[in-house]
Amino acid sequence: MKHLLTTADLDAAAISALLDLTDTMAEIGSRPVPKVPALRGRTVAQVFFEDSTRTRLSFDTAAKRLSADTLTFTASSSSLNKGESLRDTIETLSAMGVDAFVVRHRSSGVPLAVSNWTHASVVNAGDGWHQHPTQALLDAHTITRSLGAGNSLSGVHVAIVGDVAHSRVARSDVDVFLKLGAQVTVVAPRTLVPGSWFGRGDVRFTESLDEVIGDVDVLYMLRLQKERMASGLIPGGDEYSVRFGLDDRRAALLRGTALVLHPGPMNRGVEMVVDPACLPGSRILVQVATGVAVRMAVLFSLLGHSGESVDASVEAGGADR
Amino acid sequence: MKHLLTTADLDAAAISALLDLTDTMAEIGSRPVPKVPALRGRTVAQVFFEDSTRTRLSFDTAAKRLSADTLTFTASSSSLNKGESLRDTIETLSAMGVDAFVVRHRSSGVPLAVSNWTHASVVNAGDGWHQHPTQALLDAHTITRSLGAGNSLSGVHVAIVGDVAHSRVARSDVDVFLKLGAQVTVVAPRTLVPGSWFGRGDVRFTESLDEVIGDVDVLYMLRLQKERMASGLIPGGDEYSVRFGLDDRRAALLRGTALVLHPGPMNRGVEMVVDPACLPGSRILVQVATGVAVRMAVLFSLLGHSGESVDASVEAGGADR
Amino acid sequence: MKHLLTTADLDAAAISALLDLTDTMAEIGSRPVPKVPALRGRTVAQVFFEDSTRTRLSFDTAAKRLSADTLTFTASSSSLNKGESLRDTIETLSAMGVDAFVVRHRSSGVPLAVSNWTHASVVNAGDGWHQHPTQALLDAHTITRSLGAGNSLSGVHVAIVGDVAHSRVARSDVDVFLKLGAQVTVVAPRTLVPGSWFGRGDVRFTESLDEVIGDVDVLYMLRLQKERMASGLIPGGDEYSVRFGLDDRRAALLRGTALVLHPGPMNRGVEMVVDPACLPGSRILVQVATGVAVRMAVLFSLLGHSGESVDASVEAGGADR
Repeated sequence: MKHLLTTADLDAAAISALLDLTDTMAEIGSRPVPKVPALRGRTVAQVFFEDSTRTRLSFDTAAKRLSADTLTFTASSSSLNKGESLRDTIETLSAMGVDAFVVRHRSSGVPLAVSNWTHASVVNAGDGWHQHPTQALLDAHTITRSLGAGNSLSGVHVAIVGDVAHSRVARSDVDVFLKLGAQVTVVAPRTLVPGSWFGRGDVRFTESLDEVIGDVDVLYMLRLQKERMASGLIPGGDEYSVRFGLDDRRAALLRGTALVLHPGPMNRGVEMVVDPACLPGSRILVQVATGVAVRMAVLFSLLGHSGESVDASVEAGGADR
Repeated sequence: MKHLLTTADLDAAAISALLDLTDTMAEIGSRPVPKVPALRGRTVAQVFFEDSTRTRLSFDTAAKRLSADTLTFTASSSSLNKGESLRDTIETLSAMGVDAFVVRHRSSGVPLAVSNWTHASVVNAGDGWHQHPTQALLDAHTITRSLGAGNSLSGVHVAIVGDVAHSRVARSDVDVFLKLGAQVTVVAPRTLVPGSWFGRGDVRFTESLDEVIGDVDVLYMLRLQKERMASGLIPGGDEYSVRFGLDDRRAALLRGTALVLHPGPMNRGVEMVVDPACLPGSRILVQVATGVAVRMAVLFSLLGHSGESVDASVEAGGADR
Repeated sequence: MKHLLTTADLDAAAISALLDLTDTMAEIGSRPVPKVPALRGRTVAQVFFEDSTRTRLSFDTAAKRLSADTLTFTASSSSLNKGESLRDTIETLSAMGVDAFVVRHRSSGVPLAVSNWTHASVVNAGDGWHQHPTQALLDAHTITRSLGAGNSLSGVHVAIVGDVAHSRVARSDVDVFLKLGAQVTVVAPRTLVPGSWFGRGDVRFTESLDEVIGDVDVLYMLRLQKERMASGLIPGGDEYSVRFGLDDRRAALLRGTALVLHPGPMNRGVEMVVDPACLPGSRILVQVATGVAVRMAVLFSLLGHSGESVDASVEAGGADR
């Protein structure tokens, strides 16, 4: 694997391999000294043109646990302000010796473009409405490990609730969940579903959360992007909350075994009305912890020394305990 | 010790133990390679909602000398801008594997609140007008080591000059100095002393710096918070300076052995008119150096591996010279 | 060498020694694990009062490859906002244990001033229109290693094109190139050449790029500082580009062996009209890579443990492969 740009490049076998590697990385994270030297001397550059402290710190923690060096390049502090092109910026950082770029940008396709400008590896950390592949992997790991049936989601019913049209999380998650065998229902106002999705046969659609909530194994609540309200695509936050929010009444309709996930940051009182700390099925903080392990797995897959098996590297890391 | 939230939690014995451990850390800092592996694999998150490069770099240097990993979270770059609650932010960082939070906030009590939301340790790096415990410890270390009488301040007369009412430094320092046996005089305009302090028997009060300056062993100059002038609590900077500033005339009134301290950053020409480089008793840069060692001692006390004595860890560190 | 403030302090022998050491550092950078422990435990503080992500990341990468710790202090996040003087800031950072300051400032002479306020070493990373010595060293290394004639530029014709008057790069480069024996021609509008330069005998001057372009061994394109246009010193960008830009027509006039350099960031379409990726003689990305190695050489020269030869330190680093 040279880059991780989109989940479309991953088949079920590739996803499963990354989920298994994530188990190994999670074990490393639970050690008294949660570090291995696997990527010592490698440099991971985080190139963030859109603010996301959460994702940036997750990748940063992952890189440090593998002993990589990290550097951060944000739009506000960059010579892009001096008129330098994005391509020149990437070529400059490459020439300094960057081994992997972790790229977030508000425009779809920027990580792909970056991969054409460098010999380094590129990880898409979220591009526009397009993709956020490490989010999908951490969600799949969180769900499969909670359910305990290996890497399969066969027979598992997942409802994804909210603004699917403008969500890279939804696009990435639906792709991965379907590849692992899940049954997916989208719950959203009709205006917030991509038009082409109404014709696809692999995803069901409903505008009624109440209709499906008692039937799901996994309830995936998307974050409401408040700028959608400004654009008139949906009514105000209160009405959205009444129709699509998870409140006490709806939480009581969930099966006892149902899982609840959210990619964060939560809008409490909007899509998340109930306190998730009171939901036995909440896996929201597990998602965060898993995010670090998934990103370790991805960075190791991209940058691990060739000719060295994962086990050997991790063994070598063992000497570091 | 699980947290360091306020000096109120520290009795004289606990303060003395931290001052002694600071001696050890200062010795480490003086080595050719001033690093020990004591906290390798631990992650210290600096969560700063109020700007303080000075305090942040001091904690950062302390963490690195103990080989901990560090990450920085500032209000301006955070998803708090996206409406996430402070509690969700702390829980998210905790889930990524943070072992200690160093928290600065403009509101009193935030570090205490944070300690209720995480299993990690919390260090108060300054909260509102309330507390700044590592400042008090570094001041106590600076004074006691300059005087050479162990950890006691018995018989030592300290004058604290300036805006005591709005100063977390003054509150923390007075508490620690009294516990170590000092005699404390507050020198301030009556409007800048907490009302309840006039009734306490353990602190003397005067509005006249000239009255006490020839009698003190330690002169502690507080920083003038210029926003107090705007609020009308004190007259303009010039008049403040004339009444409470340390100028050449007053410096000449100091005993030859008197120490002068300031928590920084100094307002030159306001409370600090004389150039402190010309004051033989100035310990202002010693305070800065001591700050790193005190923060090493605090972080080690909170995060050092249980079942391992300080000596053993530092011995192990010795192999790193 | 205690500081690197200006190329004026370097004679040809000192320059040659740094270029040779840069070769060693470049070799380290090409290893599978491009790190040596040479500066473990040393702290390099980057103090940037003017934005330059490119230069900052280059020094940061250099410091990390030598295993130094780094900390960054930028004007925007500093207590300078609270009225602290620059001197107090430097003294405070020094007291925390900084071993070298890397200083960028919009005013000429600030790095020199800093060197008077600290016992640490100081590297000038660009001050006003004055000097940028590591840029000159990396340019000299890039050119000499491309030409393959050791450290000499004897008989090499270098044209420097653009706003020489306001360029610290030009001042530093001309000084170093002349010391190594080059023949230097300045190509610029008469308004953008320092008045005193017209009288010097060691630099030729022309307003016509076309007149010299077919004759040069090295074409050094300066960045157009757009604020110069606002000040009326030069006409609009289009006219500048027509007279002094490197476009396809002019690129075709270059000798086949001519090198093209630019300090970055480039203004594409202004001084750099042709795509440098299509210029066989372009060394622009080599300059970036060399920048890291030069800064390793400079930091090692300033901070390497006394009594230990470079070879010994690098040998010790070898154990780290």
